[in-house]
Amino acid sequence: MMEMKRFAELNREQLRELAPTSLAVLPIGATEQHGPHLATGMDYFTVESIALEAGEIASREIPLIVAPALPFGSSHHHLVFGGTLSLSTETYRRVLYELVECLVIDGFKRIFLLNGHGGNQELMQLAVRDIVLTHPVRAAAGSYWNIARQDLIDKAAADPSRLPGHAGEFETSVMLSLRPELVSKDLPHRDANPVRLPSTYRDERHGFWKDINGHTDSPDLADAARGANYRKVIAEAVAKAWVDYMNS
Amino acid sequence: MMEMKRFAELNREQLRELAPTSLAVLPIGATEQHGPHLATGMDYFTVESIALEAGEIASREIPLIVAPALPFGSSHHHLVFGGTLSLSTETYRRVLYELVECLVIDGFKRIFLLNGHGGNQELMQLAVRDIVLTHPVRAAAGSYWNIARQDLIDKAAADPSRLPGHAGEFETSVMLSLRPELVSKDLPHRDANPVRLPSTYRDERHGFWKDINGHTDSPDLADAARGANYRKVIAEAVAKAWVDYMNS
Amino acid sequence: MMEMKRFAELNREQLRELAPTSLAVLPIGATEQHGPHLATGMDYFTVESIALEAGEIASREIPLIVAPALPFGSSHHHLVFGGTLSLSTETYRRVLYELVECLVIDGFKRIFLLNGHGGNQELMQLAVRDIVLTHPVRAAAGSYWNIARQDLIDKAAADPSRLPGHAGEFETSVMLSLRPELVSKDLPHRDANPVRLPSTYRDERHGFWKDINGHTDSPDLADAARGANYRKVIAEAVAKAWVDYMNS
Amino acid sequence: MMEMKRFAELNREQLRELAPTSLAVLPIGATEQHGPHLATGMDYFTVESIALEAGEIASREIPLIVAPALPFGSSHHHLVFGGTLSLSTETYRRVLYELVECLVIDGFKRIFLLNGHGGNQELMQLAVRDIVLTHPVRAAAGSYWNIARQDLIDKAAADPSRLPGHAGEFETSVMLSLRPELVSKDLPHRDANPVRLPSTYRDERHGFWKDINGHTDSPDLADAARGANYRKVIAEAVAKAWVDYMNS
Amino acid sequence: MMEMKRFAELNREQLRELAPTSLAVLPIGATEQHGPHLATGMDYFTVESIALEAGEIASREIPLIVAPALPFGSSHHHLVFGGTLSLSTETYRRVLYELVECLVIDGFKRIFLLNGHGGNQELMQLAVRDIVLTHPVRAAAGSYWNIARQDLIDKAAADPSRLPGHAGEFETSVMLSLRPELVSKDLPHRDANPVRLPSTYRDERHGFWKDINGHTDSPDLADAARGANYRKVIAEAVAKAWVDYMNS
Amino acid sequence: MMEMKRFAELNREQLRELAPTSLAVLPIGATEQHGPHLATGMDYFTVESIALEAGEIASREIPLIVAPALPFGSSHHHLVFGGTLSLSTETYRRVLYELVECLVIDGFKRIFLLNGHGGNQELMQLAVRDIVLTHPVRAAAGSYWNIARQDLIDKAAADPSRLPGHAGEFETSVMLSLRPELVSKDLPHRDANPVRLPSTYRDERHGFWKDINGHTDSPDLADAARGANYRKVIAEAVAKAWVDYMNS
Repeated sequence: MMEMKRFAELNREQLRELAPTSLAVLPIGATEQHGPHLATGMDYFTVESIALEAGEIASREIPLIVAPALPFGSSHHHLVFGGTLSLSTETYRRVLYELVECLVIDGFKRIFLLNGHGGNQELMQLAVRDIVLTHPVRAAAGSYWNIARQDLIDKAAADPSRLPGHAGEFETSVMLSLRPELVSKDLPHRDANPVRLPSTYRDERHGFWKDINGHTDSPDLADAARGANYRKVIAEAVAKAWVDYMNS
Repeated sequence: MMEMKRFAELNREQLRELAPTSLAVLPIGATEQHGPHLATGMDYFTVESIALEAGEIASREIPLIVAPALPFGSSHHHLVFGGTLSLSTETYRRVLYELVECLVIDGFKRIFLLNGHGGNQELMQLAVRDIVLTHPVRAAAGSYWNIARQDLIDKAAADPSRLPGHAGEFETSVMLSLRPELVSKDLPHRDANPVRLPSTYRDERHGFWKDINGHTDSPDLADAARGANYRKVIAEAVAKAWVDYMNS
Repeated sequence: MMEMKRFAELNREQLRELAPTSLAVLPIGATEQHGPHLATGMDYFTVESIALEAGEIASREIPLIVAPALPFGSSHHHLVFGGTLSLSTETYRRVLYELVECLVIDGFKRIFLLNGHGGNQELMQLAVRDIVLTHPVRAAAGSYWNIARQDLIDKAAADPSRLPGHAGEFETSVMLSLRPELVSKDLPHRDANPVRLPSTYRDERHGFWKDINGHTDSPDLADAARGANYRKVIAEAVAKAWVDYMNS
Repeated sequence: MMEMKRFAELNREQLRELAPTSLAVLPIGATEQHGPHLATGMDYFTVESIALEAGEIASREIPLIVAPALPFGSSHHHLVFGGTLSLSTETYRRVLYELVECLVIDGFKRIFLLNGHGGNQELMQLAVRDIVLTHPVRAAAGSYWNIARQDLIDKAAADPSRLPGHAGEFETSVMLSLRPELVSKDLPHRDANPVRLPSTYRDERHGFWKDINGHTDSPDLADAARGANYRKVIAEAVAKAWVDYMNS
Repeated sequence: MMEMKRFAELNREQLRELAPTSLAVLPIGATEQHGPHLATGMDYFTVESIALEAGEIASREIPLIVAPALPFGSSHHHLVFGGTLSLSTETYRRVLYELVECLVIDGFKRIFLLNGHGGNQELMQLAVRDIVLTHPVRAAAGSYWNIARQDLIDKAAADPSRLPGHAGEFETSVMLSLRPELVSKDLPHRDANPVRLPSTYRDERHGFWKDINGHTDSPDLADAARGANYRKVIAEAVAKAWVDYMNS
Repeated sequence: MMEMKRFAELNREQLRELAPTSLAVLPIGATEQHGPHLATGMDYFTVESIALEAGEIASREIPLIVAPALPFGSSHHHLVFGGTLSLSTETYRRVLYELVECLVIDGFKRIFLLNGHGGNQELMQLAVRDIVLTHPVRAAAGSYWNIARQDLIDKAAADPSRLPGHAGEFETSVMLSLRPELVSKDLPHRDANPVRLPSTYRDERHGFWKDINGHTDSPDLADAARGANYRKVIAEAVAKAWVDYMNS
């Protein structure tokens, strides 16, 4: 049985030997406002912990190397609140493309961007589609809440209308389980239904995030035990996706 | 009852007067290989005709102005076949952002990018999310097959596994209805199931399009009457989306 | 005798066969304010119709394929009036270069950018000079009013001081012939001589276009019959230029 | 007495309150080949640990917030060995500038980039000089081995000719102290003197790093206890620099 | 009577006082192959000397400040011969725009780019058209051979088919007059007529400059006395253009 | 004994022959405010004269070709005073990289950027480190005051705290020797000690240059004879560095 490996803990000789047969995982997060109640590292901490937990599980079946998580994302829409470190659209596109290209140069043939922040979704997809234009590799990109969505609903009774939301019940529960000290005692309440984005097209409004105070549903619905379950289901779903990906 | 209007047919005085209360629609297409049997203008002709058909319908209820369709898309993955005119990822991002920004400068408060090519999806979403960061407007972006997906299945018996595909049964049927002379008599056959993309993450492989000869399912399943029905359902669904958008 | 062909109406197999021996024509236009009286699509409609008319004529002698016209140009100087869709200088340079590069990848050895908007002139020249640095092809770029200038004066009695101007007698006459319904009944009058740009260097002033209300001479001098003659002379001159180009 | 704070562990409300009076520290590292014997995360792990250790010390005297360490640097010169994740010169310049700009938007008036990788030095200096052109703030940038250089020589008997080197005695000692399990048992030996870069100008040769096998002096001179002392001296020197900076 | 002034010889106080009422002249040249017989600084030396000579004349009537000549141009088409220092299209566009922008920031209201190299023509025009979009100034750009063309023919019996050419009779005569020691004794001969570029559109061919050995007509027709006359006529024509420009 | 050669005075055939064995020197300067008393061309005139003087000396021992000096630098921090022509950070990086790349294409194997302006230091270092990534050459970059620093102190009694400063005693002395007519009679006095930048990290403040009136120490301490000595020592030190570089 293999052990999970981290890119930054291996030396160049080890990496050169392992790269051609291993799955390289690059977790990408964000450091940005998450309502008045959650630490700004939410997406960074979460995607890193999921990558490592899923990595532990998947490493029982496939060789896998987790790169250092990128703590920053494409979060300019949150800058209006302060508490945000974001890269612009074009810069983030370049960053993701270049990191994936380095993994190719380093010898990896299969690469997976694991995403923890909604604002990164389009840009990570561009990185993987563009890298295969000129390099004979496979590259994939997925957000953990999409990979695990069905399982979250089926196995963890997650409310689909709050999946993943931003700084709402789902994320607050995850953080209560992962690092409870980073959740404010004072959880905002909201009577209204969760903010729902149109499902068939993208609709963007100036001032949207300000209008909803930076969170999409009612954080006070969060629960640590439920969050722990979410995390368990997510790690298993992501691990399964990676194993299936390497076997496909 | 209002009449559908085209941006390029109006003069500046008319546009300046209409812009603040009208929906601006910018159709974006592609000119690219569509298998050995379909004209390369497939996505351009289709998105333009849908925009005009949906525009006719929606104009009964809302003021709406259709800009000239952009005939080119982000199609570098098809260049390997020839017969393709594509803009690079970064250039296309700039093009879409700048055209939307001009619409804002021209006075429009609501803008809708209607897309006819899969490769444009991420980039049009970036354009609309980025424009609202600094401009007090609303902007939306949708691909016609996503807007109409449920209706295509429910009302036109479309096979979900072929929606929209690329140069397969769905697109070939649409073209047989729209401009039959641009469809080769000799339609390729394929026994295998439609190529299915993973639903929970993005998976990209070097050589993918070559391996499937540039079409995702069996074009010889196409039918002109079915295509006509597809187009009717799509135009109605898109028109409804626009009306709802203006009323939201 | 050959028939004129359109890129977007051919499939990839036809294009791959025809490209090496055909002239690829890429019409580039603009959608921008054209005074208070002309539709904003003036340059787009005109260059597209000239490309097709000249294409019909030239196709009797040379193999020729017309790509879809680009409806947008480099028109930031007109944005102050509204009614304008423009790409920035650097973006437009990239767009033209990349489209020409795609034509090279598609197999064409001779490429001609036919231009319908003054603001595109420098940028199209940069595209063709830069493409031949690294690709073993020939590429040309011309504005229709320059190609046909002498003929317009000699055969159509055009006033050289109004050739082409912007939204003045010349363009208004062309539009009255091409699509009269897109010309306002109320044509502006101006007593002054046509605005003349210095012939030996380029002189640019902030506010220039506002000062002349967006048209360079007196539109009420326009005449539909004269416009029809202009168009006939232009189509013939452009067709002749293409035939000579392919035979050179 | 104040407690050291981490940006990612604070919520937006806390950050908005603390920013105007706190020093923001952004550690920037690298993930790159460090000889055949050191883990590729050397510069990332080191700069992060120094930032936190110095942060603990300095927080006794000044309010200070440490942002998440950037794990990637400008390391294209190491890609030839594999085992490297690097951003290109222009991309890295943009990344550093934009992160500093976000800190300004977030309300910080004093910003310090703490660097752990030689290849980042010029780029971080450009970021801080450029930000103050348009923003009324102070911004500083320093590499830990420069800030602590005199103290390393005076208090830790460091050999100036090996300070910092790359993957030589100095860095290997630091890693033996920080995370000994990430140092190969088999430390390379080199008889020659340390590679010395000319002190009065920059001299670059193609193939330089390959020629010296990716390390600048003899790693087998390293010693864990000496490394621990290095780290102690560095943390104190960096902390002192920050305190002085805030008091200046 | 005013004296000609050079930007680099004035201090900031003098420049701040003179800028608002003076014409700023920025000469732009090139350092590039000029056949086997002419020094590569041809365009740089020429444009600088013309700027200073014309500046002397014009300064009798208008306040005028000549900036340092830019020795480099957009000359990638000459790199195939060696002996060339060139900036790429996009970089040169940025350089010219930014230098003009600095002149605006420095307080100048009228700016004239005087050009000595054909490859710079489109790019200098873009710089002046773009600067006036956002700055309330006037900016002009002209190549000396165009400004003086009619005078060269009328007053110096220049052969229009060789005006200006590249490294042919015209330029060789100019250099024989300006710095004869930089002209090889061995002047190439060519029987053929001068290479003529199509007058109504731009025609570019890969390999063009190699095919004509880097010069457009027969250098051995050059004559130092004729060159001196050319220079005299050019300086007067350029001076007159500047005086007229300031008085317009 | 060899004679110093200038790139712009040689023709392409001479350059092609000399390039592979010669050192190419590219002097880079600036045109920017230098206090109320010095001509804005200070750094341009100085670096050019040093390059030529050092070139004369070094040419006795090594083959050496001096390219035209670039009169412009990265000086945006001085624009607030007017009297400045500057290129932005990214543009200047491109300019230096591209000029070095042309020298490589022209056949040079050893390239030296000689710098005369502090703001160019980081950018020239990036140019030389990046060029050797992909080209099999050596490239160096140095500022004359660093190359000659020890000699200036030892042989010319220069005050280290004023080396080089900006528009202070050192530069004013140099200019009094080089071109005294470009120094104002009225030299500013300052009682305070020279402004000293922190030696172990980079510290940048908004408004810094305004606060010190654009000069770092007391210009009225300048002396022409001392300046002549500075220049002599600098030329010899730079020449020696070049000779050693070619022999290393």
